[in-house]
Amino acid sequence: MPDRPSAKEGLTQWLVERCMQARFRELPADVRVVAAQCVLDCLGSSLAAVREPAPDIVLSELASRGGLPEATAIGRDLRLPAACAAEYNGTLAHALDYDDVHLAITGHATAVVLPALLALAEQRGDVSGASLLAALVAGCEMACRVGRLIAPSHYARGFHSTATAGALGAAVACAHLAGLSQEQARIALGLAATQSSGLKAMFGSMGKPWHAGLAARNGLMAVQLAARGFTGPADILESPQGFARAYSDDFHIDAALEEPPGGWHLRNTLFKYHASCYGTHAAMEALLMLQREHGFTAEEVAAIDLRVHDSCANVCDIRRPGNDTEARFSLNACAAMTLAGLDTSSPQEFSADSLAHPQVHRLIPRVELAFGEEIPKMASEVRVTLENGRAHRVFHDAGVAAKDLRVQQEKVEAKFATIAGGVFGSANAARLSQAVRDLGETSLEPLLTALRSCIL
Amino acid sequence: MPDRPSAKEGLTQWLVERCMQARFRELPADVRVVAAQCVLDCLGSSLAAVREPAPDIVLSELASRGGLPEATAIGRDLRLPAACAAEYNGTLAHALDYDDVHLAITGHATAVVLPALLALAEQRGDVSGASLLAALVAGCEMACRVGRLIAPSHYARGFHSTATAGALGAAVACAHLAGLSQEQARIALGLAATQSSGLKAMFGSMGKPWHAGLAARNGLMAVQLAARGFTGPADILESPQGFARAYSDDFHIDAALEEPPGGWHLRNTLFKYHASCYGTHAAMEALLMLQREHGFTAEEVAAIDLRVHDSCANVCDIRRPGNDTEARFSLNACAAMTLAGLDTSSPQEFSADSLAHPQVHRLIPRVELAFGEEIPKMASEVRVTLENGRAHRVFHDAGVAAKDLRVQQEKVEAKFATIAGGVFGSANAARLSQAVRDLGETSLEPLLTALRSCIL
Repeated sequence: MPDRPSAKEGLTQWLVERCMQARFRELPADVRVVAAQCVLDCLGSSLAAVREPAPDIVLSELASRGGLPEATAIGRDLRLPAACAAEYNGTLAHALDYDDVHLAITGHATAVVLPALLALAEQRGDVSGASLLAALVAGCEMACRVGRLIAPSHYARGFHSTATAGALGAAVACAHLAGLSQEQARIALGLAATQSSGLKAMFGSMGKPWHAGLAARNGLMAVQLAARGFTGPADILESPQGFARAYSDDFHIDAALEEPPGGWHLRNTLFKYHASCYGTHAAMEALLMLQREHGFTAEEVAAIDLRVHDSCANVCDIRRPGNDTEARFSLNACAAMTLAGLDTSSPQEFSADSLAHPQVHRLIPRVELAFGEEIPKMASEVRVTLENGRAHRVFHDAGVAAKDLRVQQEKVEAKFATIAGGVFGSANAARLSQAVRDLGETSLEPLLTALRSCIL
Repeated sequence: MPDRPSAKEGLTQWLVERCMQARFRELPADVRVVAAQCVLDCLGSSLAAVREPAPDIVLSELASRGGLPEATAIGRDLRLPAACAAEYNGTLAHALDYDDVHLAITGHATAVVLPALLALAEQRGDVSGASLLAALVAGCEMACRVGRLIAPSHYARGFHSTATAGALGAAVACAHLAGLSQEQARIALGLAATQSSGLKAMFGSMGKPWHAGLAARNGLMAVQLAARGFTGPADILESPQGFARAYSDDFHIDAALEEPPGGWHLRNTLFKYHASCYGTHAAMEALLMLQREHGFTAEEVAAIDLRVHDSCANVCDIRRPGNDTEARFSLNACAAMTLAGLDTSSPQEFSADSLAHPQVHRLIPRVELAFGEEIPKMASEVRVTLENGRAHRVFHDAGVAAKDLRVQQEKVEAKFATIAGGVFGSANAARLSQAVRDLGETSLEPLLTALRSCIL
């Protein structure tokens, strides 16, 4: 490693070297475990989304071009050129917005990085699961460190950092898997940065999941070109006309250099167990805790007061949701559905029918929202007032990564079995789950074989 | 047309309708003439660049994917899927940086818009030259109006507006050619904007021309998806989390709405007759004028004083250029080469050999630069002091579009004959030139046929 840069100069070089250091056998055991959980959860979110219109339209366009059958289009009996597979599979992974979350990137890292890696790995052939997992760790590390470098103004300006910082993560992941030199990897990072895009104005439309696909393809393409000798600057992050300056008003070098708890940012990935915006999760978990502890029913609830972080405003504060997408971005609907006992882990449960459920309908206007800066970003302070006048309170923070990875493993596997098994059957889901459990010790082939049996 | 928007609301709708209005027979005659000149000049710049490494590497990557032979890779015996052809041909068009310039976009519009259009037209088949030219006018109109909306901070932040605003122009051009509805065209504009990227840190590397290719592909892809029913916001320019807010600190709605001289922005396209940065052209033209008028030789020159606009600083003020690329971005080298009588219209003339030419070598350190805000952007005030003590001055503004289009036609055709004929022979060049002259009255086929005989 070069010296830790004290000023801007050398930042790109330092970060690329830091991220490219990932070696599977040398990673902390926890990081290896979470990496496999990310793979499983991302594949589950993808398989559950095969009937969604956004990836379907992207696929119809990409497949219409023809091309070599280099990499699998997940859930389809079809292989595409690697770049096209990355674009389709990334769109698929993020189509339900049910894939994992990372606060450092202010968004989703795996849904961008893994589709790029899978496409490259399948194109190259003969890749070990350990190489794939190490590259995933390296790529998420870069996405998260870039995310921290340019937060908060990057996201506040209107950029969807899943897509923008995600592309830089995908480039480093692919550079790691392809064995690029440090110099080539820095150039690839620049070539990804100069393709980096994605506007939050797309939220609520098909454009949002497509961003993950574009970022996956762009990161992969950056590496393919760098490997072919394409030139570009090797200092894209700190360059005066480079990435951070153009895309952000912030340049938090200390945040980018800081070593994360657990050694690698990927350790702190958050998984979604409700099929709604992550900003709604703390309140839902808190309500479930209160119901379990005090045993009240939805009918007994008179009022719900939720206090959440300021950043939830304009994200998940739709007070009177009218359709499934709005319900997913509505603290009111999510709280009401939770108390009414609906299965919020099922993407299909967010529907007009659920909004018309008598208790959901009754409770939605009884949810009061308050916002504050003092509360942690993904936390919620919840008070439920019952018709009998009694009130119960609890605080929950969904922004803290799980400590007990065995519990997390059970929850991620259960979610996978439900959402992937729901579309492709429990036998297929079990085979895939096993292949991911074994991934660190095998080649990628068993996983790809299991994946290819899941055909719509 | 809807009412002219007085505030932000309705801007996207108004601009899309305004640009999509272009009908070939209703365009002012001058605009039709310049449109054909843009086509010829862009094809010439492309054909002259077929041996450049940047488009060659991009092509090797794109061709490695296979795919349907939908559209011609210019200068090669190869057809690619339309999206890939747009990416390659855009990279090719901008590879020598010899393609046309437009001050409204702070960059190059045709090199992005035309490759997207040609790929789409060839994929669709049975397209008339008139439709292609009208779509080119529509697309350049959008690129220029978006350019004015977000200038100057967009470019100043580090974005390469050829690529960013260019992608929006390519989308409108393709929407026009494909006959999209106004609503679909607005969505396509949003889908182009959310892919929009390109950093000035890439200047001086292969990344710069690639931007034009990426923007062409992104604009085309936006239209293909919108035509397939992909969703996105219909107000991307003014949306609170949309294009202008994210990519710029400016929002000059009056500049975006202003009607340009000649009715359409394309009328004010500037053509390059020297193979260097456009910021050097006024000084070179001024020096040629002085030499013609006063008949002095390079040997007689003691000192050259150039006054140029502030915006030339950090763009074309390399004082002691060491190679061909630096020479193209060096007012010192360009002035010295002009006075020494070198052929600055030839891309090959910008070379280490030319820098070593005795008079060029002697004069480079004798060029003094001064910058000012009061001088027009692409103008230069030039003073040449001779060894005998006499001094000559002249002012020239290269930022004003040609008034006499017949003179411009002769110059553009002569440039084309030299640079395209130099690689593919004068017979091929003449056939292509004729096909472009006839384009408004024929189908696109004669042009495509002539283009396909130019094979490296």
